[in-house]
Amino acid sequence: MLLTRKRLLASAAAAVGLAAAGPAAPAIAQNRRELRLASGWARNFPGFGTAVERLAKRISDMTDGRITVRVFAAGELVPAFEIYDAVANGVADMYHGVEFWWQGKSPAFNFYTTTPFGLTPTEIKTWVEFGGGQALWDELAAQYGVKSFLVGNPGVQAGGWFRREISSLDDFRGVKMRMGGFGGEVLRRVGASAVLLPGGDIFPALQSGTIDATEWVGPWNDLAMGFYRVAKFYYAPGWHEPSSNCSAGIGLKVWSTLSASDREIIKTACHAENDVMESEFKFNDTIALDKLVREHGVQLRVFSDDVLRALGRASREVVAEAGQKDPLTRRVHDSYMGFHERVRRVTEASDLAYLRARSLAYEA
Amino acid sequence: MLLTRKRLLASAAAAVGLAAAGPAAPAIAQNRRELRLASGWARNFPGFGTAVERLAKRISDMTDGRITVRVFAAGELVPAFEIYDAVANGVADMYHGVEFWWQGKSPAFNFYTTTPFGLTPTEIKTWVEFGGGQALWDELAAQYGVKSFLVGNPGVQAGGWFRREISSLDDFRGVKMRMGGFGGEVLRRVGASAVLLPGGDIFPALQSGTIDATEWVGPWNDLAMGFYRVAKFYYAPGWHEPSSNCSAGIGLKVWSTLSASDREIIKTACHAENDVMESEFKFNDTIALDKLVREHGVQLRVFSDDVLRALGRASREVVAEAGQKDPLTRRVHDSYMGFHERVRRVTEASDLAYLRARSLAYEA
Repeated sequence: MLLTRKRLLASAAAAVGLAAAGPAAPAIAQNRRELRLASGWARNFPGFGTAVERLAKRISDMTDGRITVRVFAAGELVPAFEIYDAVANGVADMYHGVEFWWQGKSPAFNFYTTTPFGLTPTEIKTWVEFGGGQALWDELAAQYGVKSFLVGNPGVQAGGWFRREISSLDDFRGVKMRMGGFGGEVLRRVGASAVLLPGGDIFPALQSGTIDATEWVGPWNDLAMGFYRVAKFYYAPGWHEPSSNCSAGIGLKVWSTLSASDREIIKTACHAENDVMESEFKFNDTIALDKLVREHGVQLRVFSDDVLRALGRASREVVAEAGQKDPLTRRVHDSYMGFHERVRRVTEASDLAYLRARSLAYEA
Repeated sequence: MLLTRKRLLASAAAAVGLAAAGPAAPAIAQNRRELRLASGWARNFPGFGTAVERLAKRISDMTDGRITVRVFAAGELVPAFEIYDAVANGVADMYHGVEFWWQGKSPAFNFYTTTPFGLTPTEIKTWVEFGGGQALWDELAAQYGVKSFLVGNPGVQAGGWFRREISSLDDFRGVKMRMGGFGGEVLRRVGASAVLLPGGDIFPALQSGTIDATEWVGPWNDLAMGFYRVAKFYYAPGWHEPSSNCSAGIGLKVWSTLSASDREIIKTACHAENDVMESEFKFNDTIALDKLVREHGVQLRVFSDDVLRALGRASREVVAEAGQKDPLTRRVHDSYMGFHERVRRVTEASDLAYLRARSLAYEA
């Protein structure tokens, strides 16, 4: 959903107000410690905000309250898109969001969230944990005084809502779709139109025909937006965001004051939420997709092969170009895409081959 | 790999001897505590044994050594298949293994590891965490005085090594394959032969033609077994073990003596390793598969559709029959298969549709 999430959350933030903002330094009293976490999400925003609450609770529970993580929802301390700077500047101790929000600082951040036709949730964590991704990330984030970890994945996103069926690349070329970032640029290269709209403006634009299509997240979040009321064709897959991994970061100055065991507690809590978030999405997507199809008559479709091939070709160009912007971005790009090249065959021979086999085994 | 893993590890255990065995009660001294973990794996057995070491280290590191987890490799305290009873009887405080090893106690345990054509790694953790799986598991394990958690997944396994190409169901029917458990029963129902062989006997049997095929784990572990030297066709997917989730359990009596924060530390460490293990496999599978194909001339193949349909049909029967054995097994089966029925469409519209699209985008 990328760019309009910013405005959606900015609106939520305006409603909430800035009343909760307070002093910046971490509180240390009687060996107890409060870490101030600036969240990129509205409080309890399904899947994303709930993950932040779980992360905070886990750290507090593991330390019997010796370390508490005080969560400031987007806008309570700073707006969503300023949470990284807030940690860099010591206004907050931690943040939770998605790295591609900082692509204005460096395109390298994109690779820690997702790229069109990029790594899957399992693959991205493999690259970060075992494939050299974390060391490069540490180098990138250290420029801003930050250390970041993967914290939660919503899974492969949906391809979006279309008012009309798209049977071929010709149909797709005529589409005016709400999409930002790398995905928007890809749409333009295949001859479609990409427009940016804040979250609250999407539904009326889709209803009036100002746009023909929109993407958001997946069934759980999309159901809440009500797109099914004005667009009946729900396309798979989310080629533009196959793994929108979230992350949490902590200021390096704060990190350096923590004991080795407290660092391990925070790292382990991040891993744990990275394990749990995808499940919360999967479970709720299951309920929501059933509702969309059975109660709301939504038609599930998969993009045709010519559409996918064209999107794939353009995506490879867009990612390769962005990956050349500066020396560190090039190293991140080369590491990510090198792993992408090597891991594809393993994933095709395991996950893809299995899911295809299971579909055959269970087809009517 | 199921049953012959037992003997492989029993041999490893014999070599190691029982020298490390000691008193059974958890040590409590100066607020420090040692938990004795009986592992189902040889020490540092790639992917499985390494996961146990990481789990133990994480708990120790988070508590600054206040809680240490002393790992006894398979056979050091008890043989691999007795680790569950060891925890039930208080001989050990914790275990790490796979639940289907206890299928002799109840077929319900199978559903916490894997079933043929069953849930994927992401789906099984979703069922356990959000779909009611954990509550049923707690009920099942409480009968033995145990509480268990998911701790690590090796990912979708490989379909196995074949001496000859299998082009159709007719070819498959003639195959004599080393496979145990549900998978072996499925093989028999489609007209193939299933035989059980201990790990060390597989290679010579495959070499001499006593068997035509064997399964083991995936590229990383399979490369070490050297099967590529005598069988050039490596088939996908591992329909019989799509998600061999590992688990750790702790004695309920021990659990009840732990503080709420220490319980949270152990649970969180389990989640963290559940996040990490699949990545260690994926990373090493990537290196191993490359080596198998480039250096050893292995031919990657996918089972033909008629083979997969026949295996799928037989698997559904075998799982449904096993799921009726007793009332609790029936409830576990119904919960697992109910979720399986609902989640398939979500996974097909996200993971499957995406992986297929990416293959198209990157085909030569």
